[in-house]
Amino acid sequence: MDLTAEQKSEIEALRSQSATTRRACAPHLEEILYEPFPVLDHGFVRVIDYMGDDGAVVQAARVSYGKGTKKVQSDAGLINYLLRHRHTTPFEMCEIKFHVKMPIFVARQWIRHRTANVNEYSARYSIMDKEFYIPTSAQLAAQSEINHQGRGEVLQGDEAAEVLAILKEDAETAYRHYELMLNEDSKGNKIDENKQGLARELARMSLTLNTYTQWYWKIDLHNFMHFLSLRADSHAQYEIRVYAEVMLDMLKRWMPATYDAFMQYRVGGTHVSAKGMDVVRRLLAGEEITHEQSGMSLREWRELMESIGRDT
Amino acid sequence: MDLTAEQKSEIEALRSQSATTRRACAPHLEEILYEPFPVLDHGFVRVIDYMGDDGAVVQAARVSYGKGTKKVQSDAGLINYLLRHRHTTPFEMCEIKFHVKMPIFVARQWIRHRTANVNEYSARYSIMDKEFYIPTSAQLAAQSEINHQGRGEVLQGDEAAEVLAILKEDAETAYRHYELMLNEDSKGNKIDENKQGLARELARMSLTLNTYTQWYWKIDLHNFMHFLSLRADSHAQYEIRVYAEVMLDMLKRWMPATYDAFMQYRVGGTHVSAKGMDVVRRLLAGEEITHEQSGMSLREWRELMESIGRDT
Amino acid sequence: MDLTAEQKSEIEALRSQSATTRRACAPHLEEILYEPFPVLDHGFVRVIDYMGDDGAVVQAARVSYGKGTKKVQSDAGLINYLLRHRHTTPFEMCEIKFHVKMPIFVARQWIRHRTANVNEYSARYSIMDKEFYIPTSAQLAAQSEINHQGRGEVLQGDEAAEVLAILKEDAETAYRHYELMLNEDSKGNKIDENKQGLARELARMSLTLNTYTQWYWKIDLHNFMHFLSLRADSHAQYEIRVYAEVMLDMLKRWMPATYDAFMQYRVGGTHVSAKGMDVVRRLLAGEEITHEQSGMSLREWRELMESIGRDT
Amino acid sequence: MDLTAEQKSEIEALRSQSATTRRACAPHLEEILYEPFPVLDHGFVRVIDYMGDDGAVVQAARVSYGKGTKKVQSDAGLINYLLRHRHTTPFEMCEIKFHVKMPIFVARQWIRHRTANVNEYSARYSIMDKEFYIPTSAQLAAQSEINHQGRGEVLQGDEAAEVLAILKEDAETAYRHYELMLNEDSKGNKIDENKQGLARELARMSLTLNTYTQWYWKIDLHNFMHFLSLRADSHAQYEIRVYAEVMLDMLKRWMPATYDAFMQYRVGGTHVSAKGMDVVRRLLAGEEITHEQSGMSLREWRELMESIGRDT
Repeated sequence: MDLTAEQKSEIEALRSQSATTRRACAPHLEEILYEPFPVLDHGFVRVIDYMGDDGAVVQAARVSYGKGTKKVQSDAGLINYLLRHRHTTPFEMCEIKFHVKMPIFVARQWIRHRTANVNEYSARYSIMDKEFYIPTSAQLAAQSEINHQGRGEVLQGDEAAEVLAILKEDAETAYRHYELMLNEDSKGNKIDENKQGLARELARMSLTLNTYTQWYWKIDLHNFMHFLSLRADSHAQYEIRVYAEVMLDMLKRWMPATYDAFMQYRVGGTHVSAKGMDVVRRLLAGEEITHEQSGMSLREWRELMESIGRDT
Repeated sequence: MDLTAEQKSEIEALRSQSATTRRACAPHLEEILYEPFPVLDHGFVRVIDYMGDDGAVVQAARVSYGKGTKKVQSDAGLINYLLRHRHTTPFEMCEIKFHVKMPIFVARQWIRHRTANVNEYSARYSIMDKEFYIPTSAQLAAQSEINHQGRGEVLQGDEAAEVLAILKEDAETAYRHYELMLNEDSKGNKIDENKQGLARELARMSLTLNTYTQWYWKIDLHNFMHFLSLRADSHAQYEIRVYAEVMLDMLKRWMPATYDAFMQYRVGGTHVSAKGMDVVRRLLAGEEITHEQSGMSLREWRELMESIGRDT
Repeated sequence: MDLTAEQKSEIEALRSQSATTRRACAPHLEEILYEPFPVLDHGFVRVIDYMGDDGAVVQAARVSYGKGTKKVQSDAGLINYLLRHRHTTPFEMCEIKFHVKMPIFVARQWIRHRTANVNEYSARYSIMDKEFYIPTSAQLAAQSEINHQGRGEVLQGDEAAEVLAILKEDAETAYRHYELMLNEDSKGNKIDENKQGLARELARMSLTLNTYTQWYWKIDLHNFMHFLSLRADSHAQYEIRVYAEVMLDMLKRWMPATYDAFMQYRVGGTHVSAKGMDVVRRLLAGEEITHEQSGMSLREWRELMESIGRDT
Repeated sequence: MDLTAEQKSEIEALRSQSATTRRACAPHLEEILYEPFPVLDHGFVRVIDYMGDDGAVVQAARVSYGKGTKKVQSDAGLINYLLRHRHTTPFEMCEIKFHVKMPIFVARQWIRHRTANVNEYSARYSIMDKEFYIPTSAQLAAQSEINHQGRGEVLQGDEAAEVLAILKEDAETAYRHYELMLNEDSKGNKIDENKQGLARELARMSLTLNTYTQWYWKIDLHNFMHFLSLRADSHAQYEIRVYAEVMLDMLKRWMPATYDAFMQYRVGGTHVSAKGMDVVRRLLAGEEITHEQSGMSLREWRELMESIGRDT
């Protein structure tokens, strides 16, 4: 994460501003408001604004004239109940807004979550920053042999070195050519007085997909938790998961009770199919049961056995 | 609007709370936060929470590290530009939350705006308040002879009196029967010890459509303006329009620059069709043109003539 | 369900039309296309149109040039996989459109599913039919003593009779007054030549909430299954559940493989929390564990014990 | 557009399939169903499925038991009325599904239309095709001097040649390196037996943004027209506009009456602001009025003068 002096001072100015409000506040989130949290080699996430707190969930659920809160204890109980029983609307009554910098290929996964508002930095209007994501060697993994859309073991020796060299060189070349086509360097200076410079909306097309972009992204609490449950999951690609993990901590600062319920009922929970429940019931009744008898696919059987702590 | 002492004191408690925040604030909206504004005979609207101000629109449009604001003057210019050119995403970056009490038939129109979040008072869980909308005599209009879905002249004399009497009596009877079926009065006291009382989810079905309900309703600024442009319009039914008009003032307090742009380009603007523009061009060129020559339907022609100040 | 002769013949005309198409077809759904299936005393559901079949889910998942199908066997396997792993987008690629007639209080629950398209019969423009829902005595239940938003035992004797009488009388009276205020009977004849008649948008307000309304409703397969999972559930109010149950059969005709996966992984499945999985693992390991040791709420504990076949 | 023999035969198989249906059909759209229409150098659009026709809009608007159609004449009139008065819901009752191949930077603009369903070819799971967009020299334009996000004059001579060379070379190099990192060529053959090959989800990151991707994309008629009004507009980037133009023809085949209304009231229409209407009224009244007197910004004034056929 490389902020310019000007960007740093703009952020500092925001952080030092202070106003009095009648609105619900989340003190632990206020502490880190506007502050960029580094992710990957040049990315960041920062909270720009938020609406509501744990109490606002309760207040909306009760369609309350006042705070909605009785006491912290019973509020947490109601939040657990709402989340467990899929009463999602009170969680839609809170909202959070982020400023995120991430590689374009991450942005392309991210934007598949449609129930959010987005304002992306425009490469038709502006020049892209000279920043590309290069994985650390610990992240340079081979294609998984088991999972068709995942990673296997980390690349070794020469192969790893070669890959890293390619990634760096291609991104560098692409950006140098980008400036050349624009006839403008990243500082905005004209390179050759006799050239017109290709339109920005065209020149961008030869940048590589690991180039960083950035956007403002706003989402309600219900859809935010849905995003986190998919993207902080072990099946998510590492490069988006690290963003989700940072944002999970931000959720904890914002909404401690909702966070606990979310970890208990969503992240830590397991969805067991009809056949799966039948297997569990029969095992508990002392019956032995094999994969063949279960009627489940092998993959599903293995996942069930793992989740109930049985070796397969 | 009839609030109980308890409701009033809950609202007062919220209004007297105060916290320090780093977030953007809208001082004129803070003034009226939580305060119920009366609408119709028993309804109200009050702002419960908000996110962002005019500056936040600019900040999002610029994907800014800081405030996004240059000076008030140029901010207003950018907001005008964005609204005029249908760049709607920066307006989605602000959010407002209301508590509204309104007759059920109004709620049924209102909820057709789907891009909003809603938590309604549950008549499966709770007992409905004894409050019904009875129009003033100035609003007791006949079916329009011209517009198939609108009102014509106000009813006169006996007919008006008769209608008012019916509306009052039916609502009263329905509510009295509601209590009887529930075997519980509006204070929650059992009426007859020997009866079980019908389930709430069933008893509600014989309430009339002018019974008041209430909800929390949250929407982003872009969709809020869309709602206002349809519901504060003269074609909207009076009973929802009065809500929209009160909320239009709330928009003005929240976002003065956006409000001005909205009044200029949406509310005060006119959409002229291809044929309509052709008529305008020919009239300006000094040509005379009749409805027959225009190729427009009579209704469309009349609307055009009216909008350009020509008698028809 | 009381259709007029004209409505019957309109439906018959649609059913007898036939065209040749290159599109994917669902033969078992074609059989019942346009046919109204009775629900409650005067309601119905009928399928008006659909897009796609089981193969279309597979085709979209594979971003296929052709049919996407390999063989029925492997298609079903892929559909199971997609549903189990929450890959929801291929299910969004199919669409179904219904014409539904239901009581207004049911419509008000129904419309909370926002990710659908709706065109409702307009009571501003047209006169409502003289049809109200009156529950059978088997459905006249008392408020549940356990569940704050549910039904308990069926009302007995005099109380049941009294409730039925009230429901019938109030609906009748409300409709008679509706005609009187409109100064127009349900056939469209003027009642009193000297009266103007109240505007339709106003007169409707004293109808009761069990009056039937109707709409066209269109939804994609993913959101349709979400609707069914909530509304065909035992916690849903009976009066909406009976619609969902009829529609569940329509899903089966439309998409046999998706239906099977849906019943297996959603309807028949159980979501077990982190603490719940811990209890299951410990029980399977031969450990005894009490509610107190589990850290779960009593309600959650009971639900878990029931789902794994343990008495409590 | 370079389809493999297998892809061609898969498409042919779909085109030769035929079934009998009771559903509404659009004969002119059936003619081209599944057929790929070339766009740009390697892209295409093809219609995969559709639901409804012009009559279905009318049917939904009337919440009809039958076809909804009276006669073609009056149907067109109602469609005009609905579109002109922003009654959008009946247009949401029709749906269309496309298979589109386009450069990634085009896909990134396209997906900003959130009210649509998308299934994109997965570069985590599969290997990307070796196809990149290279503009024709007629499209190699300089940055506009007037419009910050548009194109100006076409590049000349050496500069044009140099840009083309860079675009080609970078895309080629990126793809060659992609294969090298994957250790797999575009036919799926391993390159070096001693290498593991980088995971697909990582290797893709050094592809350039003009690489072609593809997706299934489904949208309702209302949102489709919104997409077309923005993307077939002269302010849209050329590379997405050419897709929208092809799709506009598809709309015409599908829905002739809706297409006419759309061209008349949306595409050919003009939104005039409150101040703009005031200027028009005063000009028509014979008054002379200057930009200064109008209170409009210069840009807005110029646009108005142009639209009413006045020189500026």
